[in-house]
Amino acid sequence: MGSVVEDLRAVLPSDRVLTDPALLEYHRRDKADLCDAGVPLVVVRPRSAAEVSAAVKVAAAHGVPVVPQGARTGLAGAANAVDGAVVVSMAGLDRIVAIDPAERIAVVQPGVVNADLRRAAAKEGLSYPPDPGSWESATIGGNVATDAGGMCCVKYGVTGEYVLGLEVVLADGEVLRCGRRTVKGVAGYDLTSLFVGSEGTLGIITEITVRLRPEAREARTLVAVYPTVAAAGAAVAAVTAAGHVPSMLELLDRTHLRAIEAYRPMGLDTGAAAMLLVATDTGDHAGEELAAIAECCRPGASELYVATDAAEAEALTAARRLAHPAMEHLAVTRYPNGRGGLVVDDVAVPRSRIVDLVVGVEEIAARHDVLVGVVGHAGDGNLHPVIVVDQADPADVARGRAVFDAIMALGLALGGTCTGEHGVGVLKRDWLARELGPVGLRVHRAVKAALDPAGILNPGKVITLEPAPGGGPAGTARVEMRPDPAAVESRA
Amino acid sequence: MGSVVEDLRAVLPSDRVLTDPALLEYHRRDKADLCDAGVPLVVVRPRSAAEVSAAVKVAAAHGVPVVPQGARTGLAGAANAVDGAVVVSMAGLDRIVAIDPAERIAVVQPGVVNADLRRAAAKEGLSYPPDPGSWESATIGGNVATDAGGMCCVKYGVTGEYVLGLEVVLADGEVLRCGRRTVKGVAGYDLTSLFVGSEGTLGIITEITVRLRPEAREARTLVAVYPTVAAAGAAVAAVTAAGHVPSMLELLDRTHLRAIEAYRPMGLDTGAAAMLLVATDTGDHAGEELAAIAECCRPGASELYVATDAAEAEALTAARRLAHPAMEHLAVTRYPNGRGGLVVDDVAVPRSRIVDLVVGVEEIAARHDVLVGVVGHAGDGNLHPVIVVDQADPADVARGRAVFDAIMALGLALGGTCTGEHGVGVLKRDWLARELGPVGLRVHRAVKAALDPAGILNPGKVITLEPAPGGGPAGTARVEMRPDPAAVESRA
Repeated sequence: MGSVVEDLRAVLPSDRVLTDPALLEYHRRDKADLCDAGVPLVVVRPRSAAEVSAAVKVAAAHGVPVVPQGARTGLAGAANAVDGAVVVSMAGLDRIVAIDPAERIAVVQPGVVNADLRRAAAKEGLSYPPDPGSWESATIGGNVATDAGGMCCVKYGVTGEYVLGLEVVLADGEVLRCGRRTVKGVAGYDLTSLFVGSEGTLGIITEITVRLRPEAREARTLVAVYPTVAAAGAAVAAVTAAGHVPSMLELLDRTHLRAIEAYRPMGLDTGAAAMLLVATDTGDHAGEELAAIAECCRPGASELYVATDAAEAEALTAARRLAHPAMEHLAVTRYPNGRGGLVVDDVAVPRSRIVDLVVGVEEIAARHDVLVGVVGHAGDGNLHPVIVVDQADPADVARGRAVFDAIMALGLALGGTCTGEHGVGVLKRDWLARELGPVGLRVHRAVKAALDPAGILNPGKVITLEPAPGGGPAGTARVEMRPDPAAVESRA
Repeated sequence: MGSVVEDLRAVLPSDRVLTDPALLEYHRRDKADLCDAGVPLVVVRPRSAAEVSAAVKVAAAHGVPVVPQGARTGLAGAANAVDGAVVVSMAGLDRIVAIDPAERIAVVQPGVVNADLRRAAAKEGLSYPPDPGSWESATIGGNVATDAGGMCCVKYGVTGEYVLGLEVVLADGEVLRCGRRTVKGVAGYDLTSLFVGSEGTLGIITEITVRLRPEAREARTLVAVYPTVAAAGAAVAAVTAAGHVPSMLELLDRTHLRAIEAYRPMGLDTGAAAMLLVATDTGDHAGEELAAIAECCRPGASELYVATDAAEAEALTAARRLAHPAMEHLAVTRYPNGRGGLVVDDVAVPRSRIVDLVVGVEEIAARHDVLVGVVGHAGDGNLHPVIVVDQADPADVARGRAVFDAIMALGLALGGTCTGEHGVGVLKRDWLARELGPVGLRVHRAVKAALDPAGILNPGKVITLEPAPGGGPAGTARVEMRPDPAAVESRA
């Protein structure tokens, strides 16, 4: 047995095994500001499941951690490297294997970009609904590994609802196929759902079979503006109570309206407390449905506007899509040192508690004197409080962290969950443990130990392992949940 | 430590612990004819999760098997007792805990009958779609444990798609809560989906949170009759290809048409090869959609009839609902000894292969000289070949078994799965192992061992455990997969 790198080079084509320091640095982290990340030993770029298997077998033989990565657009640090890890970049497995209109399924490799699958499906008159904000760059593998959501979820559900079957490289390098290609199937344990959202801690996904839907019909869209968050919340409740199932029901708070207007002026009402963006795509009669939805949204609105055509609807939706870049712009311009950063939180609460969440976040932000905006999927109770901090100022980072923890506590207190669609990664490991409770955590650890007894797969993500007598599995102690100002400094 | 029964009586109210031999006999089996079943030691009827937990702790201390039962309407023997088991009947946990219209969720105990939940939801203007054929008697707990389907699935999906969260008593008696009450949530491993469909082998479900939908709109229905199965299959493919999502798309073959007409004459065309029953429930404009679907169904049809109102639609659907009782009637009347029985198979194939399946089943039936009818959910490729045998005749049972095995092999060869909605139980354990392959089976066993290390939960169902050195866990060797004529005899 040689070194890890030597052994990888022995089993893989030479261009697959990379150790250039700049490249290692580039592969350290995803888009979760303030989460710690280690330095990988090597980056492997396999082109097939067999190559993934070979790489994992080498890592397993050496007992070194394996960290799979997609496009690293995640917001919880799930793809962050740990020190000494073999990072396996799945970007090279980027083939759409098949799109089958008769069965309404697609078979894709994990490195396929979400938008590319959408476009390929559209060519066959089909749609792949899951639409995370990063859909133009995020890969399906990462979407599946984090069970990514998006604006469509209020009607069409999250990524996991589309995954029928998977091919997965296990911790010992063996290749598992689970799930099915049929519409229905209940044969055995639902391993497919177990791997969905497991963030690379149970296996590395090398092929995905997803169901597709008939082509989406053109959406009709309205926008409504409210002087109070409570009025916007009442409108959301009224839409649900009337039995409507909109294809989009988004909320932007005042902070976001102002950030977007500052970033790209489009005449948004920056004096409003909240804006709702609602769409329905029921086909020929969507206009009638939207009119009914408008009646639910009108009470308390200071303005309500129904888009007259698709171009106008798209313009309204574009404002929502600018929320994240606008807040990034705000963060960078807010601090003269250019080190402003965001912690994008992701809380899902019962639909009826979204006003409590937004108002509670406002109170927390005021108490800690930290800027926090709220945006998200009001229709399904999944909101993103976005915390703005100066990454160069340890005191500011600490305040941001206190705000983050207070928001997490509020979300759980409202009957919610610590993550609606972004996943746990490193960022929310402690909060997940709290949400699960001791029995839930024990079962998580038992499942992890059953599938990855040596603890080499993406260690320290989602859960920590119980310290084994004489020291835990490799890597589990290396990633700190709490952002360490020194670590943040070292990113500069 | 006393005997198992003494210890159960020590921790539970006396009316919960039953050992009457007639009652033990009554609780031996579900509705899977020809599957072996043992004789339980005791039947426990808990009234709370705490009582389930107490019973499991006693069983665990004694190392005796625990077999949970709902209404025992299953068709794969998953609820069959094993010798010496503690049968835990969940029928007494029958409370609808909450229906929350604002959140569109319901919280129910496992013993709630499917139809009762549907009626309770309807009172709030909501619907609970999953509709297994036994919905008037089957319990939600059993529906969840088997991931039951039904006629709605082609549009609305199977039971698992509605389960948001669970309370589960684990193999050591500890109580786990997993999942959520929010619409969205991706926190940690999807344990909820892991328990759904696990047939009581990983834990005993004591509370279920399901999502509800807005009230279903009135369905518009058509029936089309075909001289060949191929013509019916072409119609199914045309409906799908045109992008329609019917709320029901059922197929009955000639054997079923004749059985229903003999059982309850309603003027069905018993000369036809197949009948399709199609509905759409898109609301005010369902009539337009149904007209478009009718155009897809017309080519090749010898007759096509669109129901003019709800009563007529219900009458058409009633014919489909009579399929199972009609085939039971056929089986009983076919043999003068009154011992005619059914093996209800459950194969899901890719939608485009349903004609291959139906024609293949006809060939298999002819080759073995066994009567087999086919009925089922053509819209999602999930069909039920129903094999008629004389349970008193070992040679006939053997022929039936050969037909069953040939159909399973055909289903897998067509890219299908051995169960679309009925589950594995005892009936399909060998076929599941074949479908999973060695790696899949190994992962199943690892998950089972992680959650039930002593192997006491519903042993011998879904999978067998690997024989441990010095003998396997209690009960795993006691249930024979293959129907044993002697065991069948003992049911008389």
